Amino acid sequence: MFHISDAKNFVGEEVEIRGWLYNKRSKGKILFYIIRDGTGYIQAVAVKGEAPDKAFEMYDQLGLESSIIVKGIVREEPRAPGGYELTLTDIKPVHKSVDYPITKKEHGTAFLMEHRHLWLRSKKQRAILRIRSFVEKKIVDFFYENGFVRIDTPILTATAAEGTTNLFATEYFNLGKAYLAQTGQLYLEAAIFAHGLVYNFGPTFRAEKSKTRRHLMEFWMIEAEEAFYDNDDNIALQEKFISYLIQNVLENCGDDLKILERDTSLLEKVVPPFPKITYDEAIEILSRKNFKIRWGEDFGGDDETAISESFEKPVFVMNYPRDIKAFYMKEHSERPELVKCADLIAPEGYGEIIGGSQREEDYDKLLKNMKDFGLSEDDYGWYLDLRKYGSVPHSGFGMGLERFVAWVCGIPHVREAIPFPRMLYRIYP
Amino acid sequence: MFHISDAKNFVGEEVEIRGWLYNKRSKGKILFYIIRDGTGYIQAVAVKGEAPDKAFEMYDQLGLESSIIVKGIVREEPRAPGGYELTLTDIKPVHKSVDYPITKKEHGTAFLMEHRHLWLRSKKQRAILRIRSFVEKKIVDFFYENGFVRIDTPILTATAAEGTTNLFATEYFNLGKAYLAQTGQLYLEAAIFAHGLVYNFGPTFRAEKSKTRRHLMEFWMIEAEEAFYDNDDNIALQEKFISYLIQNVLENCGDDLKILERDTSLLEKVVPPFPKITYDEAIEILSRKNFKIRWGEDFGGDDETAISESFEKPVFVMNYPRDIKAFYMKEHSERPELVKCADLIAPEGYGEIIGGSQREEDYDKLLKNMKDFGLSEDDYGWYLDLRKYGSVPHSGFGMGLERFVAWVCGIPHVREAIPFPRMLYRIYP
Repeated sequence: MFHISDAKNFVGEEVEIRGWLYNKRSKGKILFYIIRDGTGYIQAVAVKGEAPDKAFEMYDQLGLESSIIVKGIVREEPRAPGGYELTLTDIKPVHKSVDYPITKKEHGTAFLMEHRHLWLRSKKQRAILRIRSFVEKKIVDFFYENGFVRIDTPILTATAAEGTTNLFATEYFNLGKAYLAQTGQLYLEAAIFAHGLVYNFGPTFRAEKSKTRRHLMEFWMIEAEEAFYDNDDNIALQEKFISYLIQNVLENCGDDLKILERDTSLLEKVVPPFPKITYDEAIEILSRKNFKIRWGEDFGGDDETAISESFEKPVFVMNYPRDIKAFYMKEHSERPELVKCADLIAPEGYGEIIGGSQREEDYDKLLKNMKDFGLSEDDYGWYLDLRKYGSVPHSGFGMGLERFVAWVCGIPHVREAIPFPRMLYRIYP
Repeated sequence: MFHISDAKNFVGEEVEIRGWLYNKRSKGKILFYIIRDGTGYIQAVAVKGEAPDKAFEMYDQLGLESSIIVKGIVREEPRAPGGYELTLTDIKPVHKSVDYPITKKEHGTAFLMEHRHLWLRSKKQRAILRIRSFVEKKIVDFFYENGFVRIDTPILTATAAEGTTNLFATEYFNLGKAYLAQTGQLYLEAAIFAHGLVYNFGPTFRAEKSKTRRHLMEFWMIEAEEAFYDNDDNIALQEKFISYLIQNVLENCGDDLKILERDTSLLEKVVPPFPKITYDEAIEILSRKNFKIRWGEDFGGDDETAISESFEKPVFVMNYPRDIKAFYMKEHSERPELVKCADLIAPEGYGEIIGGSQREEDYDKLLKNMKDFGLSEDDYGWYLDLRKYGSVPHSGFGMGLERFVAWVCGIPHVREAIPFPRMLYRIYP
């Protein structure tokens, strides 16, 4: 089957395209049908007297988004968006579409979200999800090339690493409640003892009543866990990972970035090393900007945006107070009130895209942390086992896919960075 | 950092390995430490008088699965499993492991499952999950190379494509119940109108009270959906897909298949074309084997095994009765009691690994099917829209990852083909 993206190999030949009518216009004796298949867009031109009469009879019958089979001869046409055009020789409807709901006029977000199943077809949404798909491919490539083994961690879990208040729960037969995992990290930690370097990649759930442009109830996360890595090794890996993804997107997704009118000069700067500041320094930056945050408090979205404004590249914020971070993070050797961690904040106000840390490898310290955080020893017996039998220094991180994609695409809200977003007031379609 | 899998590039050099003590033995004046890192196994040999005394003092202190840092000089050794050995020059414990629970004696499955977090380290489990990880990488490659766009379909859904009885449910804020998706197919169908060829790859949930060796409550599925493909195109794609995965595993996972003692001659036969029989013919095969199944009934696990015994390759069973298949399947043009579908049954009794079909593209027929199957028109308004605006012939399929991996690895139960299996009586660890 011929695909529009292959047009350059068929100049002068007649091809058949199976796709949809994306747009049409007429200008005197000439008709223009813009056709879309999965791979791209092409304009088919019909001149009165040269093209079959059918092409003209069809014009009014074919509503936008009708499915059609079009034949035509491929021509080079420098003025056309893709560089090629079709001299139309035949057009045949597969299914006529009448009154397609999404029109050229401005629609509100609620309307578009309600029609997400159709909105996906629009040029911009298509470009975003093509970039997402490419990013996902390169995520898998990166970890494969760097010797990581993929470990799919469970979604249904009996306990919760970061508390159960923000978790979706379901009945699990006779075993009581199960929770939808917010992270697979603890399970990845078990797997490093078998495979050294491991990662996961799957959906994650957070039943949080937040309605910001950076939150989804269901989002995709990539987590990596690395045996014998300290916090610095972990950070170096993240720099390499983020740069690899960005540079690959720049090389391969130029057309889609153009559709999104993304300023790629900002992305080109994303090469190692990234700036690194401490939590203390971040608090100072915010104080200088007259933010009211006090030492010991966690950053909100506005804080992250303000921090990112001081840097052109993503910035690591290191060594947070232990009280606002998870129980499994390793104590800072010189300042026990801190932990050896780093969050990566994207530029341009896209917020935290990675959270990572070195993990506490000492059995007694971990157990004490768990008690301090109110976690039950029984529930985490298996996790404590990992510190009993050949414990090693290790680190890991987790990246939120939608935030990353939103940043790359330069779109203001994560809801467009996932095919069917799940938000506080939306679970349809 | 040096990795055991790189040994061949370091012959004659001193290297440092960070890993775990997999096994040890002593024979007169010689000690053998078998060390494992994430990438492989290697034996370090210490000869009394040549190796440091420390190596001998350590021997009794180091329990199996202790984490250690070992230095040694790499030597070629044709008798060693990987072809290389280490002349030990230093050994240093990182963390001493005492009384590691999994020993050389036979453990029951319940015990091993209860210790899944540790069992992962064993040689066979490690091999299985390495193969799984490789298969996952090649799945992503296959779809990328064939022009498919990845579309992550939602897990939390307001309705259920195949009935709600076997679904896990959770409260979704003020929007009522949400169900964990059993399939993302309907959502993929929406995406073909934007991208032509699409696939998803993620966890799937089935709250079914079954306890067979082929069932998990949480398993991973790959689904593909293809615009303008009929059932035959769909089958050809599946043949290509399965053969691609199998041949890539044979080329790249030889060591792991050897650990699993897999008879690879059976896998080598998996090249297109695969045999194709109809449902009617499958019923005949079973009748000849004195199975009591009657026309119109669905196959159980034993039926599938019996069918597979007649073939060396995976076999497609086509055109099932409509009453035992899903509402979205396209009617057979000559026999309206059948649908245009095919299930792919793996050889050697590994059961159904793929279910696929052409989809009903006609609005009126689809609506009638939905009513016949007792589905509400309101719940599926968005899905019906896809037949309103430029409907096209299309097909798709779904493959269960764990069944595929179990087949490739030659293991009897799917529970070992996933890192942390979720079964009727198991959600821990």
